[in-house]
Amino acid sequence: MSRDMKKLTGLVAATFTPLTTDGAINLSVIGSYIDYLTEKQSVKKVFVNGTTGEACSFTVDERKRLAAEWCLQGKGKLEQVIVHVGCMSIKDTQELAQHASSIGADGIAVISPSYFKPTNADALRMFLKEVGASAPDLPLYYYHIPSMTGVALEVADVLNGIEKMIPSFKGVKYSGTDLRDLGQCVCYSQSHNWSVLYGVDEQLLGALVLGVHGAVGSTYNYLGCKMKQMLSAFDEGNMTQARDIQFKCMDVITFAKNLGFDVAVNKQVMSELSGLALGPPRLPMLPCPISKAQTIAQKIKDSFCLT
Amino acid sequence: MSRDMKKLTGLVAATFTPLTTDGAINLSVIGSYIDYLTEKQSVKKVFVNGTTGEACSFTVDERKRLAAEWCLQGKGKLEQVIVHVGCMSIKDTQELAQHASSIGADGIAVISPSYFKPTNADALRMFLKEVGASAPDLPLYYYHIPSMTGVALEVADVLNGIEKMIPSFKGVKYSGTDLRDLGQCVCYSQSHNWSVLYGVDEQLLGALVLGVHGAVGSTYNYLGCKMKQMLSAFDEGNMTQARDIQFKCMDVITFAKNLGFDVAVNKQVMSELSGLALGPPRLPMLPCPISKAQTIAQKIKDSFCLT
Amino acid sequence: MSRDMKKLTGLVAATFTPLTTDGAINLSVIGSYIDYLTEKQSVKKVFVNGTTGEACSFTVDERKRLAAEWCLQGKGKLEQVIVHVGCMSIKDTQELAQHASSIGADGIAVISPSYFKPTNADALRMFLKEVGASAPDLPLYYYHIPSMTGVALEVADVLNGIEKMIPSFKGVKYSGTDLRDLGQCVCYSQSHNWSVLYGVDEQLLGALVLGVHGAVGSTYNYLGCKMKQMLSAFDEGNMTQARDIQFKCMDVITFAKNLGFDVAVNKQVMSELSGLALGPPRLPMLPCPISKAQTIAQKIKDSFCLT
Amino acid sequence: MSRDMKKLTGLVAATFTPLTTDGAINLSVIGSYIDYLTEKQSVKKVFVNGTTGEACSFTVDERKRLAAEWCLQGKGKLEQVIVHVGCMSIKDTQELAQHASSIGADGIAVISPSYFKPTNADALRMFLKEVGASAPDLPLYYYHIPSMTGVALEVADVLNGIEKMIPSFKGVKYSGTDLRDLGQCVCYSQSHNWSVLYGVDEQLLGALVLGVHGAVGSTYNYLGCKMKQMLSAFDEGNMTQARDIQFKCMDVITFAKNLGFDVAVNKQVMSELSGLALGPPRLPMLPCPISKAQTIAQKIKDSFCLT
Repeated sequence: MSRDMKKLTGLVAATFTPLTTDGAINLSVIGSYIDYLTEKQSVKKVFVNGTTGEACSFTVDERKRLAAEWCLQGKGKLEQVIVHVGCMSIKDTQELAQHASSIGADGIAVISPSYFKPTNADALRMFLKEVGASAPDLPLYYYHIPSMTGVALEVADVLNGIEKMIPSFKGVKYSGTDLRDLGQCVCYSQSHNWSVLYGVDEQLLGALVLGVHGAVGSTYNYLGCKMKQMLSAFDEGNMTQARDIQFKCMDVITFAKNLGFDVAVNKQVMSELSGLALGPPRLPMLPCPISKAQTIAQKIKDSFCLT
Repeated sequence: MSRDMKKLTGLVAATFTPLTTDGAINLSVIGSYIDYLTEKQSVKKVFVNGTTGEACSFTVDERKRLAAEWCLQGKGKLEQVIVHVGCMSIKDTQELAQHASSIGADGIAVISPSYFKPTNADALRMFLKEVGASAPDLPLYYYHIPSMTGVALEVADVLNGIEKMIPSFKGVKYSGTDLRDLGQCVCYSQSHNWSVLYGVDEQLLGALVLGVHGAVGSTYNYLGCKMKQMLSAFDEGNMTQARDIQFKCMDVITFAKNLGFDVAVNKQVMSELSGLALGPPRLPMLPCPISKAQTIAQKIKDSFCLT
Repeated sequence: MSRDMKKLTGLVAATFTPLTTDGAINLSVIGSYIDYLTEKQSVKKVFVNGTTGEACSFTVDERKRLAAEWCLQGKGKLEQVIVHVGCMSIKDTQELAQHASSIGADGIAVISPSYFKPTNADALRMFLKEVGASAPDLPLYYYHIPSMTGVALEVADVLNGIEKMIPSFKGVKYSGTDLRDLGQCVCYSQSHNWSVLYGVDEQLLGALVLGVHGAVGSTYNYLGCKMKQMLSAFDEGNMTQARDIQFKCMDVITFAKNLGFDVAVNKQVMSELSGLALGPPRLPMLPCPISKAQTIAQKIKDSFCLT
Repeated sequence: MSRDMKKLTGLVAATFTPLTTDGAINLSVIGSYIDYLTEKQSVKKVFVNGTTGEACSFTVDERKRLAAEWCLQGKGKLEQVIVHVGCMSIKDTQELAQHASSIGADGIAVISPSYFKPTNADALRMFLKEVGASAPDLPLYYYHIPSMTGVALEVADVLNGIEKMIPSFKGVKYSGTDLRDLGQCVCYSQSHNWSVLYGVDEQLLGALVLGVHGAVGSTYNYLGCKMKQMLSAFDEGNMTQARDIQFKCMDVITFAKNLGFDVAVNKQVMSELSGLALGPPRLPMLPCPISKAQTIAQKIKDSFCLT
């Protein structure tokens, strides 16, 4: 199989998972979701079944069906579909990795197991190696998100020598705030032509200046156009404009956090802003009151002059 | 179905999961494992597929096969088989709960999801309610282990009113160190005839004095006899003897922790002490060097005068 | 000087520091405070200038004047006055230690510096050694309170061999919740005839069973009589009664915590219950609204049937 | 008094405190220290008695003598001397603030008390207000360093409206890693012409892009020239060069951290690199072995091609 391993760069939307009102996955929304992203937000890359997608709350079978639908519906519209396959169990992770390969995904991403946490970089590399070996033709990205996993191993330590263990290793989705570690990842990745994608939307600018190659995040679902302007401003050396956009993003995130902002709330905000019927979250998350989502959505519209 | 919902009390061994050398679950060891527990340790209650059992590292199917084998082999030998069914996904959890019922388990225990953490006691109670509803005939125990899950909700808050939501609720496996919260759980459980089982072996005595009804832990696999002596001493008011045994337990745990003590090490220590071939752990845990396990096993033997 | 180094045991009140309404230390209240403790609460041992006493918020000079007044007024009424002398600066700590000796204190207690935290047990022992050397005639107690200092070194490691470095070392005020560590401290202290005093009032019973020799806490200011009953019940093997009292204590502390319970609130509660005019806290603590203190005081009265 | 309140910008060295070999403050080194900074590092602004200066380990009197000497010796050589006056006690803090004013300091900085932590932004603002009122003619900077204080209040909340409470408020030394909060501080400071100085040297570039006005740190003692080049590169839009310097800084800090890197080690590294005899740290910090400091110093020299 000749897969086009094109480097992952730019903005990538971490997609929400549409559910029906009674809590089943709702594949029927995915087509219009893709249209919304590509047409309204100019975002053509997606990160499916990640934290934003509540993947850990779904079964292996549900995750397969979701991934398959995104790949199928995205054909000809999306440039890249990265499927997150991380599970607590390595066997489940491997099964999802193989499945991602079979459906034509453009890459897989893997979090560290978080119930049993790897005690050192070696243990995590071994885990990633076994996952990579089960889908050797797919670019593999390590997905670092210590706020969720509690796994705080320095990623630079994990990367060190990983190219010898995992030929398909292609980079990191870095959703942490340790810029020293991030910078060293960027530095190390240069000689391997890997991608370092940043995952904390409200402080993306601080990562851009360190040379990250793109960003994966939930707010790019509804602020894709605006954040692309930030990337352009930065590239053109217009720091004042880039900063202005980033400050607005910080402001709305802070506003939302002060009201209580989890994936369930974020999903409802997306429903409000996009018009897509994404439905409720799955337990243990509780549904977000509509009025709260509307308040946050309005704040976003006002801050960014959305219509 | 008329199930004998006898109150869970006394010592309960949190079982390790035997693996073959190439990492598959090894059901063939379970029979002799049960003989060892019942004959050598006088322990006739087990907590299967818990943290000690590395449950999160196994697939739903593997967990079913393990639970079924423990129930099957335990028939006539074990007094109670409690099956831990907690998963990140509520659907997987429900499936395991139903399965536990079908194989004749004596109860189920459930951890909180830990990737997406319930934001308050309500969310967790809702989650537990849906699980309970899927196996209404089985006693349900909430399994609190904040050091692993990062979920630090006070259990007393979770218990408050839960009897109205979950008729099958029967108690808590409390593996935390907040004795204020623990005491309030015991206090609340009195009027409902629930069981509060303590899960931090090295400080069990501090929980006994607060009135817990039993204990679930990994060290009861190999120190069952000795810890039963501690329970008896406490019941007889012989605090000096009870304390002496607890101090020895603290000492060996500290010794092990200073060398690095995780489930993988503990499992190998059990292999050394019991002679059972429990095999390696599963990734992301790394195998424990034999010499390290032998050092810890020898320390345990010396401290407790085991032969 | 021949000092009577009698072993510190039983209940010790961690005293509040009376302030005038404009924030100056108010020595004039100390006499009646001592009368209240000894006559109404049957508590004849005090721990002065500790956390409850807001010591860190006072200057070295203020702390000297407070300590001196407690020693002076306590003469003939109090059995032991322990003065906490810990500061961020070792020189200040040494100065307070020497002063405590000069005013006839019965012992000194020392927290670890918490801004610069000792990196290992050696560093902390060195610090304590230099303090002890400045007041070699006074019993010295290490005061462990990780929730405030962030210093989580295991105390058992700190104690190990400390008798060779500090001849005046006499024990530990243990205000942490790690019972494994606590138990090992008790075990180690046995052969040295040291005192281990427990400092988390709401879970004292769990420490008593491990053999601690007494307790230092803020609630003994107003619940001294009641908690003495718990100690007696425990000593007599009446676990049901001991537990009942401890559960009430847990209940009121939880009630207070849910309303927001810091030293400022606790101090106002003490004013309400004792009738002493203890005044406001010092910044950065904010004064407690009277109504909140009254609500908590009423809860305490109701729970313990105080009149 | 007419004080020139010029805006604080650019690189500021957080100075070490020279001690004699027997642990007393060594004022005699300060003159040559200033010469080294101004002549060899082109750094003409200092932050005295901060974390790097071990201020919390010194008495009020020692801190006064240190601050006075820096002001005296710096006259005509240093552009600004900022004196950190934060203590656990507000009275000590106020005394140091008044003293700083009397000796002609150019500003004061204040950490939050960290033993008793302010429970909300109001409490901290009240504390800062009282300090500011004691030295109203001096620019006051809030010094945020959650890794040391454990005070994690969002600084943007603290700043909100503080101009009405503290007329002399002039900005923040931000030694945290939360760029969302930092960005909002920069944003808020714009309309007040305040300075936001960043304090995590190894990730300064991520703060520069957000618009901070300068930096305060320990590495500018010996890498002042090099880091000034980074600032220039950034200002000129040469991100590649700026990044290259920042990556080197990250690399050496990581190298040092892996060996164990605290203020004591850092101070010895400075002695090695500068030739100044800064002496040992004060307890509870332990002296750094010379060989370790030399290893780190050599790494720094090699990375930055220092001679």
